[in-house]
Amino acid sequence: MELEQVLEGARALVGRNRSALVGSIGEGGYPNIKGMFRVENHGLKDFFFSTNTSSRRVAQFGQDGRACLYFVDFEKVEGLMLIGDMEIVQDPAVKSRFWQDWWTRYYPLGPDDPDYSILHFRAHQGNYYHSLEKKWFEIR
Amino acid sequence: MELEQVLEGARALVGRNRSALVGSIGEGGYPNIKGMFRVENHGLKDFFFSTNTSSRRVAQFGQDGRACLYFVDFEKVEGLMLIGDMEIVQDPAVKSRFWQDWWTRYYPLGPDDPDYSILHFRAHQGNYYHSLEKKWFEIR
Repeated sequence: MELEQVLEGARALVGRNRSALVGSIGEGGYPNIKGMFRVENHGLKDFFFSTNTSSRRVAQFGQDGRACLYFVDFEKVEGLMLIGDMEIVQDPAVKSRFWQDWWTRYYPLGPDDPDYSILHFRAHQGNYYHSLEKKWFEIR
Repeated sequence: MELEQVLEGARALVGRNRSALVGSIGEGGYPNIKGMFRVENHGLKDFFFSTNTSSRRVAQFGQDGRACLYFVDFEKVEGLMLIGDMEIVQDPAVKSRFWQDWWTRYYPLGPDDPDYSILHFRAHQGNYYHSLEKKWFEIR
């Protein structure tokens, strides 16, 4: 596969999957996985998720920001893994920018609720496979 | 949720998903995820996958056996993470037991093909969530 094809396939796969599998380093150094819905992404580089400040994932990323995202289409034998780092964002301006009103059911105090955090994932490497071909690429 | 309900939900979720997301520790200590089809499982404790001996996953598990499996149903807001250890099995008896004839397309030398390996995952802990409830449980 040419790099252009890889990027096109990877972007299309991300585009049709709002849900991502998020990998983190958990207790005892074991890998952990959780399914999360992204609130926004910029291409294959930046992904934003909303989460509870009190959640296990925030505690894990506070200790170790190493992360990955995975998007998969089992029927098409197609997958994308993005390797990168996760930052916990509590900046009120960023939190307000992503806020959606119906989230008051989760965060009763609104965008300033201290239990509401944004996770910002920055990819630096990707691995895309389709059928039996696969390719690593850098993300800048 | 009572433990009985948790185990019942977890077993049903595994039962209807042949595909699992497999977490490993990759290069630089970053978490990695790959979708894999299991060839067999015994309840929530033992899972078997077939793979290429030359694959990245085998190299990773050879260095660090810490692993997790994840099963998810996004529509039902239901997920199961199993934490455990992955062993690379090259015992010819075990490899023969799982062998399927159509795999010669991947492993031309048959069950004794040195590029054919079995991965054996043994769970020791589980985390099941459904709707907004979640529960950790031990697996023995």
